[in-house]
Amino acid sequence: MINVAVLGYGTVGSGVVEVINTNKDIINNKIKEEINVKYVLDLREFPGDPVMDILTHDYNDILNDPEVEIVAEVMGGVNPAYEFVKSALEKGKSVCTSNKELVAKHGPELIKIAREHNRNFFFEASVGGGIPIIRPLNTSVTADDVLEITGILNGTTNFILTKMSKEGLGFDEVLKEAQDLGYAEKNPSADVDGFDACRKISILASLVYGKHVNFEDVYTEGITKITDKDFVYANKLNSSIKLFGSAKKQNGKLFAYVAPMMITSEHTLYSVNGVFNAIMVKGNVLDDIMFYGSGAGKLPTASAVVSDVVDAIRHLNDNVYTEWEEEKLELSDFDASEKKFFVRVENTAGKEDEVKASFGDVEIVKVDEFNDEFGFITSVMSEKEFNEKVSKVSGVITRIRME
Amino acid sequence: MINVAVLGYGTVGSGVVEVINTNKDIINNKIKEEINVKYVLDLREFPGDPVMDILTHDYNDILNDPEVEIVAEVMGGVNPAYEFVKSALEKGKSVCTSNKELVAKHGPELIKIAREHNRNFFFEASVGGGIPIIRPLNTSVTADDVLEITGILNGTTNFILTKMSKEGLGFDEVLKEAQDLGYAEKNPSADVDGFDACRKISILASLVYGKHVNFEDVYTEGITKITDKDFVYANKLNSSIKLFGSAKKQNGKLFAYVAPMMITSEHTLYSVNGVFNAIMVKGNVLDDIMFYGSGAGKLPTASAVVSDVVDAIRHLNDNVYTEWEEEKLELSDFDASEKKFFVRVENTAGKEDEVKASFGDVEIVKVDEFNDEFGFITSVMSEKEFNEKVSKVSGVITRIRME
Repeated sequence: MINVAVLGYGTVGSGVVEVINTNKDIINNKIKEEINVKYVLDLREFPGDPVMDILTHDYNDILNDPEVEIVAEVMGGVNPAYEFVKSALEKGKSVCTSNKELVAKHGPELIKIAREHNRNFFFEASVGGGIPIIRPLNTSVTADDVLEITGILNGTTNFILTKMSKEGLGFDEVLKEAQDLGYAEKNPSADVDGFDACRKISILASLVYGKHVNFEDVYTEGITKITDKDFVYANKLNSSIKLFGSAKKQNGKLFAYVAPMMITSEHTLYSVNGVFNAIMVKGNVLDDIMFYGSGAGKLPTASAVVSDVVDAIRHLNDNVYTEWEEEKLELSDFDASEKKFFVRVENTAGKEDEVKASFGDVEIVKVDEFNDEFGFITSVMSEKEFNEKVSKVSGVITRIRME
Repeated sequence: MINVAVLGYGTVGSGVVEVINTNKDIINNKIKEEINVKYVLDLREFPGDPVMDILTHDYNDILNDPEVEIVAEVMGGVNPAYEFVKSALEKGKSVCTSNKELVAKHGPELIKIAREHNRNFFFEASVGGGIPIIRPLNTSVTADDVLEITGILNGTTNFILTKMSKEGLGFDEVLKEAQDLGYAEKNPSADVDGFDACRKISILASLVYGKHVNFEDVYTEGITKITDKDFVYANKLNSSIKLFGSAKKQNGKLFAYVAPMMITSEHTLYSVNGVFNAIMVKGNVLDDIMFYGSGAGKLPTASAVVSDVVDAIRHLNDNVYTEWEEEKLELSDFDASEKKFFVRVENTAGKEDEVKASFGDVEIVKVDEFNDEFGFITSVMSEKEFNEKVSKVSGVITRIRME
C-alpha cells in the first residue's frame, strides 16, 4: 500500500481525493500497488464529510509519519506551502503540487532538494490544469532547439476575450459575468493583469531552457485596456485578440512576455476559445505542436495532480531528472523584441500624413462603424523603435501587438 | 559516448541523422553524454553523401557491435524490420522506431522482450509524426478512465478532405493534386482506404487500455465515397467531414473504428485542417485534451524518433514500463455502436414519407443547389438498427456517420 497525504481540502484538494476514490482500480492497476489517502491537512472542519476520518490540522502528523511516501500540495500560495514541501522532500517524501506561485518562485531549489534525496518534485498541474505539458516538455520535446513556447495560459482572460470577440460586449460587462459564473475572482487582478500567466510562462520557459526565469523579469501586460472597439477591428482583419504568455528566440536573443496579441485565423492558437488553455511549442525540426485542454477546474486539475502521484509512485526511490537549474536564464530587454503593431488614432485633419511621417508606409484600417478614428498596422519593428515613433503621433487611442 | 545505429536511410532515416547532427549540442546537454551515429544501414549507396563513411549493408555489423546501445529502426514494413528489432533487443540494445506496421503487429511481443532484457522499445514516431502522444499516454494520462480516444491520424486524407471542404473540389481531382504535391502515394490505398489510420488507432487503443488491439478487428472505412456534394450539405450544417480513428466506451462496451465522420464546428477536432494530425483524449475526470501537430514529414517524424533516442539513453539499463500486454483486448461488435447518421436520398415523389415510415421523425436537410435529392439526419441508433431501417428506403445515395 502506498500512502498519500493531501495538503489542503479546497477545490483542487477535494478533487484529488475524489479522483483517487473514483478511479482507484485504474490507478492501482497503473502502479501495481494499492493507493491510499492517509491524511488530508486543512485548518477547517468538514462535518459530515468522510474526509473527517483522515483530517488533521497538524502538518507534523504527516511529516513525521514514515508511512506517507507522497505529499500532494494543493493549498496554493507560497507560505506555508514552501516550508511544508521543503521539509517533506528533506524527509524523503516525494511531492506533487498544483501551486504555480510556489513553483515559479522556488522551483529549482525544490527540484534540487528532491534530486539530492532521490525523490521527486512534480508540478504538472501548475500550468494548463489538466493538459499534460510539464512532463512532455521534460521528456518528449528533447530533440529540438525550441524557438518559441507560447500559451493561452489563463482561462479567465480567455473566457473574457472570447466573449468580447463573439458577442461585441465591453470588458467590464464580461468581467462581471465571469465573476457571477465563478470564472473570475472578486479581485480579478491576478488574472486580468497577467500575473497568473506570467508565473506560468516563467515555469514553462525555465523547463524548456533549463535555467531559472525570474517571473519578475518577464514583461507583463494584462487585458484591462482591451475594448469592444478593438474587436471590431480584429474581426475586420479576420483576427482575434488573445492573452499570450510567450518565450521566444529572435535574432539570437531570448525574450519572455505576457501581453494581449492580435492574431490572424492562421495562427495555431486562434481556435482556442472560452475557458480552454493551449500551449504551442515551435521546435527547429519539430515545427509547431500544440497541447490543448481544460486549463483549470476542480477535476481536470486534480487529474493532473494524481497523474503526478502515479508517476511519483512509479519512481519511488528514483529521481526523474528535471532540467531546471538555479542559475538565472538571461532574458534580453523586451525593448529589443520585434513585431508589428496595430494602432488606433483619432481621425483629425491630416492624421494619415502625420502617421506616415513617423511610421513610413503603413496599412490603414478603417471600419464603417467609426468615423472619428482609424487604425493602422506598422511594419515589423522593435518595441523601442515603436515607442519612439508613436510618441511623435498625437491622438493615439491604443496599440496592440500583432503576430 | 553513446553509439546509435540508424536502420534505413530513406526520408525518416536521413531526417534522424540530420536532427542528431543539427541539434547535437542540445541533445548532448539533455543526456549529459555525447551522442554519435556509428552506423547507417541501407542496401543502397549514397555517393558523395557523408553518410558513406558510416554506411553498412550488413545488419550483423550493427548487431554484433557491443558499442551500439541504441538502434533507430526507420525502414518501415514488417519484414525484415521485425527480425532486426527483435534480435537487437535480445542483444541488449534499445530500439526506437517510427514503424507503425511493426508496432501494430508485434508491439506487445517487442515490449515484453525489451522488458525482459531491461531495455526499451519506444515508438513515439509511429503515430502522429512529431506530436508527443505515445509517451504522454504512457506516463501522463494515468489518473483517468479514458472514455474515448479519437484522432485525425492520417495527414493525406485530412489534406484531401480539407481541400474538398474549402474549395468545393471532387475527390479524384484533389487526390491527384495530393499525389502531385507528394502528399499521397501513387497507390493511395493505405491512406484513402483507412488502413494507415487503422494501425494507428490500434496502437493508441492498446496503450490506453493496456491490452492488444488486433488491427484486423477494427472496423475500417475510407474516404473514397465522400463527394463534393457531401460537403455542400456539411457546410450548410456548419459541419465538416473528417476521417476519424476512434476507440470509445459506450453503454459499457468498447468499440474501435476508422470512418469518415460529419462533425460540427463545436467538436474539438473541427479546426484540424490540412496535413495536420491531432489526437483527442476524453477522460472521466480530465475532460477533453488534444495533442496537435505535424503528423508526418521528414523532420517532425525524425524529431520524435530522436526524442525516443534521448529517452532510451536516459534509461540505458532501466526499462520504462509500457502497459500493453499480449492478451487480446475484447472489442464489441461494431454493429452495436450508436450514433446519428446523415443520409442523402433521391428526391422522388413521396420520398419524405417513405423515409419517415422507416426512420420516424428525422431532420430533413435541403440545399438550394440540388433539386433531385435531399438529406436527412436520423436519431441516435445502432449500426444494426440503421442498416435495417435504411434497407427499407429506396434511392439512398450515401450515408455518413455524425458526431
